[in-house]
Amino acid sequence: MPIHRLMPNVRQVIRDKDLNLLPNLLQGRKPVDLADMMTDLKPSEQVLVLHSLDRAVAQETFQHLLPSTQNHILEILSAEEAAALLDTMTPDDRTLLLEEAPPESSEQLMQLLSPEKRVESESLLKYPEDSVGRLMTPRYLAVSPGWTVAQVFDFVRRHGAQSETLNVIYVVDEQGRLMDDIRMGQFLLAPLQARVSDLTDGRFVALDASADRETAVDVFMREDRTALPVVSTDGILLGIITVDDVLDVAADEATEDIHKIGGVQALEEPYMQIGLIQMVRKRAGWLTLLFLGEMLTATAMGYFEQEIARAVVLALFIPLIISSGGNSGSQAATLVIRALALQQLELRDWWRVLHREALAGLTLGGILGAIGFLRIVLWSAYSDLYGPHWLLVAVTVATALVGVVLWGTLTGSLLPFLLRRLGFDPATSSAPFVATLVDVSGLILYFSIAALILKGALL
Amino acid sequence: MPIHRLMPNVRQVIRDKDLNLLPNLLQGRKPVDLADMMTDLKPSEQVLVLHSLDRAVAQETFQHLLPSTQNHILEILSAEEAAALLDTMTPDDRTLLLEEAPPESSEQLMQLLSPEKRVESESLLKYPEDSVGRLMTPRYLAVSPGWTVAQVFDFVRRHGAQSETLNVIYVVDEQGRLMDDIRMGQFLLAPLQARVSDLTDGRFVALDASADRETAVDVFMREDRTALPVVSTDGILLGIITVDDVLDVAADEATEDIHKIGGVQALEEPYMQIGLIQMVRKRAGWLTLLFLGEMLTATAMGYFEQEIARAVVLALFIPLIISSGGNSGSQAATLVIRALALQQLELRDWWRVLHREALAGLTLGGILGAIGFLRIVLWSAYSDLYGPHWLLVAVTVATALVGVVLWGTLTGSLLPFLLRRLGFDPATSSAPFVATLVDVSGLILYFSIAALILKGALL
Repeated sequence: MPIHRLMPNVRQVIRDKDLNLLPNLLQGRKPVDLADMMTDLKPSEQVLVLHSLDRAVAQETFQHLLPSTQNHILEILSAEEAAALLDTMTPDDRTLLLEEAPPESSEQLMQLLSPEKRVESESLLKYPEDSVGRLMTPRYLAVSPGWTVAQVFDFVRRHGAQSETLNVIYVVDEQGRLMDDIRMGQFLLAPLQARVSDLTDGRFVALDASADRETAVDVFMREDRTALPVVSTDGILLGIITVDDVLDVAADEATEDIHKIGGVQALEEPYMQIGLIQMVRKRAGWLTLLFLGEMLTATAMGYFEQEIARAVVLALFIPLIISSGGNSGSQAATLVIRALALQQLELRDWWRVLHREALAGLTLGGILGAIGFLRIVLWSAYSDLYGPHWLLVAVTVATALVGVVLWGTLTGSLLPFLLRRLGFDPATSSAPFVATLVDVSGLILYFSIAALILKGALL
Repeated sequence: MPIHRLMPNVRQVIRDKDLNLLPNLLQGRKPVDLADMMTDLKPSEQVLVLHSLDRAVAQETFQHLLPSTQNHILEILSAEEAAALLDTMTPDDRTLLLEEAPPESSEQLMQLLSPEKRVESESLLKYPEDSVGRLMTPRYLAVSPGWTVAQVFDFVRRHGAQSETLNVIYVVDEQGRLMDDIRMGQFLLAPLQARVSDLTDGRFVALDASADRETAVDVFMREDRTALPVVSTDGILLGIITVDDVLDVAADEATEDIHKIGGVQALEEPYMQIGLIQMVRKRAGWLTLLFLGEMLTATAMGYFEQEIARAVVLALFIPLIISSGGNSGSQAATLVIRALALQQLELRDWWRVLHREALAGLTLGGILGAIGFLRIVLWSAYSDLYGPHWLLVAVTVATALVGVVLWGTLTGSLLPFLLRRLGFDPATSSAPFVATLVDVSGLILYFSIAALILKGALL
């Protein structure tokens, strides 16, 4: 991205107030690249850049900025300028901007819109946040079943330029209810005097405006379409969603899941844009919660203080054993969380997963147990580190490993199901969360096994 | 999905060889739903289902199956049937199927294709795996700059039905070099006698056929398009990519990252489809590696055996301290990995991230340190668990927590940069990997701080 190398110049030019140099520097750049570059600037600098651009380029560049950035800029601009920018935005992008704005400024911005667009935006904003309705654009082509193909083409010629897609034309009845979607290709192959109703088969897929936007991603992935219609509960066609917006949603949802799996509350802004205090807050919550949970390990170990005092050798393997449980749990949780998100697994599959993971956990535990056993036995051939009862210690550690890995695997794989069943996001069962759960129980398991095996020898 | 509830019936009908019931049961179902249902069946049962469907429905259903499933089915079918299915597939889906097939059966399938389609598939398969070229379809509309708008419409009428998109028409010169892309909306607004060259502005975005398919996701997200042209290194238009295919790629890439972050080698098939042995293998590798790394904790603790023997109270806090380091490291790694994947961060940003994370780590460490300190002090008011030197123990634990959390945060945030710099995938710095690294160093830090603070008192 050569535009990035331009950045220091732009910064310098702005700082030096050499503002007549700016238009030359930015000449011929594409709006997408300009928007990319502007993310690193302060709002006041961003406004200077927009002012140096041709009106049309400035408007397109503005569209490519993040909603939060757009809002900062609008606060600085005059009402007239803000109105001009808002008016040229596509309805779905404007919805994103307005929903990001603080309530009072969202009200003000709404007042700047032309009456027609205000009605449009108001109707889009009445759908719940993160719903399919918020992603809609009302720019589509709809025809009546009674029209001829020739009439359809005439309609496309007159109104097609305003539509977000020309691949599909929607058929609605007199009440505005969606009856079918017909690919443009079918119209092209049909005789001009044929009726639209001759082409319909009544088989179409539509999204519910009030559904969660995640369902839009799922449906688009299943159906392989570039646009899908959105309907109200009584089947009225309200708008369409194009797949390019869904691509952003899919990326957002993946980011949310990834952040949760890593044990962070999902950040809503890019890493470098979010304020330090806000970021620390997003992390401190979970970290503190995990810490409080992990404190139980100190409590648990308090009960075994005497055992540790008598057999310090047991303490040496504590990190090894609990981390193996945590790692295997994190693996299982990650696999199940992602499979649930992609609908490869459903709630009712928990029983099959339990079987599968029990086998996987035993195998993996067996492998780690064997390695751990060998390590202690081999070491003891050369050193006295593990004392005279090294063989019993080896058996204890190996047995504990099998148990802890099995336990970690089962916890990790079933917790996401439990969370979904309880109405939470399965991704909340993050790697650190599972590890913490397994740490406490793993310690108890380890010392119980040790008590059993080493009784009379070391303990 | 009501189709799922149909499953037991279908299974039963197949098992009972009541094959004349099958067509009735499947009547009127959509191909996507049929494909969904078939994923749970054995290949031989899947073939029975396909045979019970109308030819056209069977063909479309087949297209919606996973490439691996498709290959299993083709192995069972007669050459003639296989040829018919292959021939009706879209070129990009056929590429996916052929690249998943084992080499010898891929050769055989290729022989089944009509000569024209064989050439098409061969040319698509010559691009490297996971490249943009593999996702291309040659079904697009291209016109010459000298044509009139009327000629373009005539061309669209005759060939539009075969094109994957009608939203954009591509302009190529006599050598087939891409000159521009023009939205259909522009043609609709232009006078019929205008030339294509009057509408071109030479500004277009094209993908390089040999580029990694991940770049396609990035470009689509930046550009908000539903289709993008793909060109060779000398600018020849080779095909187009539609965003619905990119949506699948984006989901695949997110899955790969999520699996890696969870410490698993990425699975290529859905969770329930992959064989148990293969899945265990994908997990055992990393788990064993992490286990071997974690063994260093036992070694490290061996050096402190005497300290532990003298002050068993120190052992109680080992899990708490190392898990705090691991958790904070996992948070930082996750945030940076995702920001790198979304290109919110680049390699050169590591210095700024270091600053940010140093502050975040100190703050988070301070919070956990304070909680840990309070816990020990409060507990000691009521119990003797932490012995006479409880205040020194509290100071030791609190200091170690600040150090370990800072260290975990820095390791977690910088490791992804290091991995990318060395040419590895940043997502390899999984939560378990970072935790393991931090565990070993965290223990050494803890005992070193203890030695310093508790010298003369407990040690």
